[in-house]
Amino acid sequence: MRSSAASDPRIDDIRAASRRLEGRAVVTPLLESPLLNARLGGRLLVKAESLQRTGSFKFRGAYNTLAQLDAAQRRGGVVAYSSGNHAQGVAAAAQLLGMPALIVMPADAPAIKVANTRGYGAEVVLYDRYRESREEIGRRIAAARGAALVPPFDDPRVIAGQGTAGLEIAAQAKALGARLDAVIIPCSGGGLAAGCALALAAECPGVAVYTAEPVGFDDMRRSLAAGERVANDPGARSICDALLAPMPGEVTFPINRRLLAGGVAVSDDEVFAAMATAFGELKLVVEPGGAAALAATLSGKIDVKQRTVAVIASGGNVDPAIFARAFAR
Amino acid sequence: MRSSAASDPRIDDIRAASRRLEGRAVVTPLLESPLLNARLGGRLLVKAESLQRTGSFKFRGAYNTLAQLDAAQRRGGVVAYSSGNHAQGVAAAAQLLGMPALIVMPADAPAIKVANTRGYGAEVVLYDRYRESREEIGRRIAAARGAALVPPFDDPRVIAGQGTAGLEIAAQAKALGARLDAVIIPCSGGGLAAGCALALAAECPGVAVYTAEPVGFDDMRRSLAAGERVANDPGARSICDALLAPMPGEVTFPINRRLLAGGVAVSDDEVFAAMATAFGELKLVVEPGGAAALAATLSGKIDVKQRTVAVIASGGNVDPAIFARAFAR
Repeated sequence: MRSSAASDPRIDDIRAASRRLEGRAVVTPLLESPLLNARLGGRLLVKAESLQRTGSFKFRGAYNTLAQLDAAQRRGGVVAYSSGNHAQGVAAAAQLLGMPALIVMPADAPAIKVANTRGYGAEVVLYDRYRESREEIGRRIAAARGAALVPPFDDPRVIAGQGTAGLEIAAQAKALGARLDAVIIPCSGGGLAAGCALALAAECPGVAVYTAEPVGFDDMRRSLAAGERVANDPGARSICDALLAPMPGEVTFPINRRLLAGGVAVSDDEVFAAMATAFGELKLVVEPGGAAALAATLSGKIDVKQRTVAVIASGGNVDPAIFARAFAR
Repeated sequence: MRSSAASDPRIDDIRAASRRLEGRAVVTPLLESPLLNARLGGRLLVKAESLQRTGSFKFRGAYNTLAQLDAAQRRGGVVAYSSGNHAQGVAAAAQLLGMPALIVMPADAPAIKVANTRGYGAEVVLYDRYRESREEIGRRIAAARGAALVPPFDDPRVIAGQGTAGLEIAAQAKALGARLDAVIIPCSGGGLAAGCALALAAECPGVAVYTAEPVGFDDMRRSLAAGERVANDPGARSICDALLAPMPGEVTFPINRRLLAGGVAVSDDEVFAAMATAFGELKLVVEPGGAAALAATLSGKIDVKQRTVAVIASGGNVDPAIFARAFAR
């Protein structure tokens, strides 16, 4: 159990993370499409984290965490468990810092995510997503190796790193002359949402921040409504391979409960439609989980009409066969 | 016939265009992939003009031209002929400036380009690419309407506008700590190449600038080699719908002859391979013609090994069925 909120990241931690990431992470663009805006009757800004180093926002939190380890800790290397994007983020951050990395990944992760994780020099250990505990495997290997364990979301350093995307959204929206009414963030364990909510509370007070999750994995939405952490049905399935965490984090949930306006759930079909729109209108390759927030606006579940809404397109690591399904509908 | 080089755009015209475009055009990111760099043994920087307003660099030249018309000229509206990207650029620029626009487009242009041109409020007139002269149709309609004609490349204001992409490449490469050895630019009539070559000559003296064209439409490459403008075989065909101009422009060629290091030609298959790499490694949707310069590096026709090379990914307006062909190889 965690003891208190004393270790929650603060805005200064996010600003420090931003300085650590300078020259390492891409300041991804905040894009919009005039044709799409006209169709929605409002202004939709898309933070293209698919263009981030490693193809997702996860590099931010991974690098921010590993860069704070001392020399002895770095020599011990790093272990992480991840469905694929955190895997690549940790592997790439470790490579930049000269650290050995071992990543525990589900056997059914997209081929591109496994191949790229190995491409960044990491060792990959596969496990069965539905029968084994990745946390347990990760902890066991980390203990045996004396390696640091970087959790995918439930860590103040990881949350602070992800929050740098929120700082950028605030600054970029301002530069575009846009006053944000709402920001929608794809959510699995809630690290990106928590970090960005902290950043936006400081930079854009009053903006309504929502999570977007797949139907069946909308544990954050239901937990926010219930006021306590509730888990997903273990039998649920979704095309959003990046958003399958079983329940909100112990560290992320109290932050999100305090700062978020709520959550929405989107179907696979709405996600595919959003991927097709990202392709056609924004020229972005967005993976299923990365398209969840965009799907929340296009489906009308969060209204853009006469408003300015930013969404994070959180990743672009998708195999061609899955991408093609967005056009087969 | 054109009289002299007196009207050639100069670096100050490009800087002025840059100021005109501020807040209108997207400062598109200069992206790279560490995995791709490792594979190439060098540093490849990709200027993502696919993320530009209207999905290609063409908005730059169109807006720079239309913004210089006086109030009376603006009332007369604008006419343009284009395979699709200039069409959208002119339509979007005209819409921003409150001008009526009519665009002459080939009947076989990609559906997305025709639909979007209409989406920006322009009237579209279709013609037969292989039997009719778009220049003649465009001139006739412009004369009948008293409208301004904005040619797709052979105009100093258009060239200066496109050159703003070159200014950005120079500044962004510097910010990344990269010293450019070469820049490769997709080429049809040569406006983007001429504008960027002028900008790069001022900002990165010594950098080698090349054009990339489809096999069969490599008129710029052959013209540069011959020292005079030569035309393509009218029977040639290519998947690169944006790069089918029959010969270099009267205004663009002397600039390119003076400033370019040469040109390369790429096959349809090399273009599809580049589109697949842009998808997988850079998460960018790039259309066939937009991938020509990237194809020149991946095919080894221009060597990246132990060098720093920038390529322009000049557009992303591609129908899903063509995009899918990049993965069917």
